Amino acid sequence: MPRPGRVPPTLEAVAAHAGVSRATVSRVVNGTPGVRPELRERVRRSVAALGYVPNSAARSLVTRRTGAVAVVIAEPDTRVFADPFFAQQLRGIGHRLAAEDTQLLLMLLEGRDDYDRIDRYLSGGHVDGALMFSLHADDPLPAMAAASGLPTVFGGRPGWAAAAGEPGPLYVDTDNRDGARQAVRHLLAGGRRRIAVITGPLDQTSAADRLDGYLEALGLAEPEPALLARGDFTAAGGERAMAELLARSPGPDAVFAGNDLMASGALRTLRARGLRVPEDVAVVGYDDLEPAAWSDPPLTTVRQDVRHMGELMAELLLRRLGLAEGPLAPVVTPARLVVRAST
Amino acid sequence: MPRPGRVPPTLEAVAAHAGVSRATVSRVVNGTPGVRPELRERVRRSVAALGYVPNSAARSLVTRRTGAVAVVIAEPDTRVFADPFFAQQLRGIGHRLAAEDTQLLLMLLEGRDDYDRIDRYLSGGHVDGALMFSLHADDPLPAMAAASGLPTVFGGRPGWAAAAGEPGPLYVDTDNRDGARQAVRHLLAGGRRRIAVITGPLDQTSAADRLDGYLEALGLAEPEPALLARGDFTAAGGERAMAELLARSPGPDAVFAGNDLMASGALRTLRARGLRVPEDVAVVGYDDLEPAAWSDPPLTTVRQDVRHMGELMAELLLRRLGLAEGPLAPVVTPARLVVRAST
Repeated sequence: MPRPGRVPPTLEAVAAHAGVSRATVSRVVNGTPGVRPELRERVRRSVAALGYVPNSAARSLVTRRTGAVAVVIAEPDTRVFADPFFAQQLRGIGHRLAAEDTQLLLMLLEGRDDYDRIDRYLSGGHVDGALMFSLHADDPLPAMAAASGLPTVFGGRPGWAAAAGEPGPLYVDTDNRDGARQAVRHLLAGGRRRIAVITGPLDQTSAADRLDGYLEALGLAEPEPALLARGDFTAAGGERAMAELLARSPGPDAVFAGNDLMASGALRTLRARGLRVPEDVAVVGYDDLEPAAWSDPPLTTVRQDVRHMGELMAELLLRRLGLAEGPLAPVVTPARLVVRAST
Repeated sequence: MPRPGRVPPTLEAVAAHAGVSRATVSRVVNGTPGVRPELRERVRRSVAALGYVPNSAARSLVTRRTGAVAVVIAEPDTRVFADPFFAQQLRGIGHRLAAEDTQLLLMLLEGRDDYDRIDRYLSGGHVDGALMFSLHADDPLPAMAAASGLPTVFGGRPGWAAAAGEPGPLYVDTDNRDGARQAVRHLLAGGRRRIAVITGPLDQTSAADRLDGYLEALGLAEPEPALLARGDFTAAGGERAMAELLARSPGPDAVFAGNDLMASGALRTLRARGLRVPEDVAVVGYDDLEPAAWSDPPLTTVRQDVRHMGELMAELLLRRLGLAEGPLAPVVTPARLVVRAST
């Protein structure tokens, strides 16, 4: 808020108050290393005493960097905090950014109203770049990122094609289609014949690609309606979807769930109905995050190295910002089936 | 990074490219409402085409606001994502800030190396204020906040006193001492005589205050060594602490754990040893977050309205920033015992 009648103190005023040079104040304010701790502390006290608001543009005009990267997750906080997928991604991202002394700023989207505000912050020169994940098909984030000119890397293959002559978006993904194929072939090899699928939200490419891989492995062009139930990547959604599948006749003898959380929900429904896993129904998940190995029975699943994918996202963005060396191209990591007791 | 030989495009260049006035570009870039969507989009395209980097200070010189507030949690991401306490706090904070069109930026601290970087971002004029929680006694964050002059509100009573003549820190807390007293009195009223305590990290005031309340209710000046075990607010820590307590003789007939996660760990240890809850050992937690009601048996605990506390933190900061009306003083919310089957 503008404070009427108050002239904001200048860098020079801080320098005079602290009894140091203007350059020293500038170095402290800009976080440039090499200022002695005592001087740094003296400048800090003067900054506080005068109520000086350091001018972020003063620094960015010199360095063109803010030293921070926004991570925007297009999911409500309930999802972000309940799914270890996000914690692992963030750990990987934070770790790689920290190695280049770059700060991670996490921004969550609760609702559509939040987009405008996030747009303003991202366009406001407060961050050097953005990492965005969990995008849905109609998500305005990619257009916002493009309009702001902010270097951006996506988690998961974006669902749109680049215009002719323009470079495509940078992203990190796992080979979702191949992972799903491996899961379903494993179930077929185990003699399963009525293999159902619980999908994630099909406006996300990860969910759509896993469904495609399921269909490919079964040699189908379209899913058999009785064997498909839509979930939402949550455990509660998996629970509901499994109940739907069991209500149909004949029921499935196996289920491929689009992620581990939905698989754990499916296990709960099967247990509540007195069905044995894998004897009556075999279950495969996707992700191989910690809960998979702890579930009862431990879950056969498709492993993607989520933390490493986070590191790769940060790495691509650092390359884009000229802070790391390497090719500027999307990265797709391999998926690998991990067989445990649920199949 | 400076791009040698490239002159950064100006606001004027963007205005000329878009065929609009300088003021319109400024309004779009600064997120001022009232620009027609078509104009807004046209300016965006020019911004992207020219690679214009909006100057955050240009806006902050006018409004003195960035529209964002940092939330700094002095805990590793493993803790933040595993404890629903943080998700609830953040939900409350985000909800209250969103009502004033202010963006929440979450910054996690993985290690000591991160402090300098966070300090630089907080001092760099990129945020209007900060909310800090989960501070430990030797935490450098409060001094950083003071030195930067950034308006700051703390979650939990800070462990230091204000210097004479200075205003004390603004914070939101629950009445930890009273909550602990209620828990222990309830156990005494149930006929328990060897009431053990599992504490959180005692360099956090919440953990220390809960221990004080436990001692007060028992009329003790110091804990009985056989009945005290230190935990770390995690489920694994509660599991270990309970095992320690059971290794002593005579064992406890009740346990007051400093939070629900540690209580759930204690329940696991008791179950693994074949001890019945509450027949052999009664258990009380603290927080009353979702897992308390789902545990087996459901947990007697001390309820604090964590989401509301998050809203109050945001409210205090908004008042401090002149964006909301009301007294500028610490807020301590009441604690209330919730009795379930574990006692």
